[in-house]
Amino acid sequence: MSLPRIAIDAMGGDEGVRVMIEGAALARRRHDKFKFLLVGDEPKIKAALANHPGMTGASEILHCDDVVEGDEKPSRALRRAKTTSMGLAVNAVKKGDAGAAVSAGNTGALMAMSKLALRTLPGIDRPALAALLPTLGDNDVIMLDLGANRECDARNLVQFAIMGAAYARILTGLSEPRVRLLNIGTEENKGTEDLQDAAAQLRAASGLAMRFDGFVEADKINRGEVDVVVTDGFSGNIALKAIEGAARFVTDLLRNAFTSSLRSKVGFLVSRPATELLRHHLDPNNHNGAVFLGLNGVVVKSHGSANALGVANAVTVAARLLEESLIERISGDVGALEHRGAATIDRSIDLA
Amino acid sequence: MSLPRIAIDAMGGDEGVRVMIEGAALARRRHDKFKFLLVGDEPKIKAALANHPGMTGASEILHCDDVVEGDEKPSRALRRAKTTSMGLAVNAVKKGDAGAAVSAGNTGALMAMSKLALRTLPGIDRPALAALLPTLGDNDVIMLDLGANRECDARNLVQFAIMGAAYARILTGLSEPRVRLLNIGTEENKGTEDLQDAAAQLRAASGLAMRFDGFVEADKINRGEVDVVVTDGFSGNIALKAIEGAARFVTDLLRNAFTSSLRSKVGFLVSRPATELLRHHLDPNNHNGAVFLGLNGVVVKSHGSANALGVANAVTVAARLLEESLIERISGDVGALEHRGAATIDRSIDLA
Repeated sequence: MSLPRIAIDAMGGDEGVRVMIEGAALARRRHDKFKFLLVGDEPKIKAALANHPGMTGASEILHCDDVVEGDEKPSRALRRAKTTSMGLAVNAVKKGDAGAAVSAGNTGALMAMSKLALRTLPGIDRPALAALLPTLGDNDVIMLDLGANRECDARNLVQFAIMGAAYARILTGLSEPRVRLLNIGTEENKGTEDLQDAAAQLRAASGLAMRFDGFVEADKINRGEVDVVVTDGFSGNIALKAIEGAARFVTDLLRNAFTSSLRSKVGFLVSRPATELLRHHLDPNNHNGAVFLGLNGVVVKSHGSANALGVANAVTVAARLLEESLIERISGDVGALEHRGAATIDRSIDLA
Repeated sequence: MSLPRIAIDAMGGDEGVRVMIEGAALARRRHDKFKFLLVGDEPKIKAALANHPGMTGASEILHCDDVVEGDEKPSRALRRAKTTSMGLAVNAVKKGDAGAAVSAGNTGALMAMSKLALRTLPGIDRPALAALLPTLGDNDVIMLDLGANRECDARNLVQFAIMGAAYARILTGLSEPRVRLLNIGTEENKGTEDLQDAAAQLRAASGLAMRFDGFVEADKINRGEVDVVVTDGFSGNIALKAIEGAARFVTDLLRNAFTSSLRSKVGFLVSRPATELLRHHLDPNNHNGAVFLGLNGVVVKSHGSANALGVANAVTVAARLLEESLIERISGDVGALEHRGAATIDRSIDLA
């Protein structure tokens, strides 16, 4: 089976064209079947391609002058969906010119454009943004939603769980990934009514391709004991950023401590392989590639500050989700849930 | 001025009486003016006191048999407010037998008992739980609410900001501590209506003893750029636990890395002073003592797993808040706000 090509918004991200093209080229060195539609300023793209001769035969350029700004309001960017590199990359997926789109640009604008162009899958009310976080275990943990939906009801959360589990099956190879709802305690009566309601529905639903383990508190996200953490976009954003900030805080403290005396500097040099291992494990580039789940198409958000390695990882995520039929898996799982009528049991469960 | 004595719930916490008494004794070695009302099982307290002869003259024992369990529902514990060590410690503050209470027991029960016995201050609708977190700066950051109130409106958040600022003035010595609202972005239009509303009120209010700097995202809590982070109890709990979990995750990774080879083990031994500095900075015992703000009395929650040093820090927090008149400061600030009519401006501000 030949892999559909991947549309790259070459203009997004803090570093611009050079990093996006280098990232795509890096991904292609891993899997030479990758093909690309490179969207953006043609002279700049051609200049960047000059360093990667292997890319020329595998790429088509779609020229445009317009770019979505990093701080632009999504509503404003939406009006330029047909003229910007981001909009055209997403539109290529809609038209079937590409199987997936990757952008490192404005997250809100990418969400808005993707939703408008690709629409949600039947049975999915809202898409969600899912990211990967490092753990103490063998696999990354998937967390969603991370800001696409500020407020979510029980129905949304159940759908997010199904979407996240489909993604986790691809990522981990597990037939029943471990799914939990983020909450402020693990007892059944903790948290909002929507959380309790969603938990009751997931507990009651039979035959879902996941193991629903109830609630998880935010200090257990990275322990490697859960594969999918489901949450509303507000709490998810808070949790994700708190984790990122705390990890940076500890490594900053460590750097300060290591440079505080000659002895500790020597110790640092001796133990460098150990601290490099830590740095590697925490490097966001190694966990890059947030996915908009629930749409009629694969759209991957690369971090704005990702380097070429990070972009390559985001491209690889997009390719893997295409190869392993993410969309069809989600559709199948949602259909199965609706067929069994589990989506209608929410009102009949006694939550007292 | 003689310091009012501090009531200690000697039965709370994972380690029990011995650690609570040892912590109180440790605090007293720092400040020999401290006096205690030790509430709980008299024989056990007397046995624990045997190791601390200096404590005997400074302590009175209030015997009781009953103890609030760690996993007990607050509503159930409330019915035993008059017979449990926790309830009697809080009640001692109400009756004026003590100036403050310290407990390492069930947080929800302590909140419920404190609220019922001490009531909120005039102008305060709800109390909030405020904790200290380490930063890269010179002072800890105060974060509230951390779980006492699952949902908060703009009025609650404004009151929390005033309460937190009063606490921060005592902790940092700054006349205008830097206060921010936790949100998923820093732009004015980010987050819920209540967050935008609270920000507008705090921006418009003049003469408050704080510098209101707008919103803060969760990855900036520990940078040392903010003294008070204000949030609802749900988000605050998520952020606090995410930070705790991520810090533990990174230090676990570091330990794994340091023990991965002989070379890194040697490096670890050489750089031990550096990693000890890190451990010291992150040790929760060094930031122990969460405070229930907004009540007619000082109640401090010591972490259930705190060691004697941690308990001593919680006792010292209680003493400092008494000495520096926390309650009077909050009352004054809330009164000033109401006098200026700032609490009534919320509806007149255009948030479009």
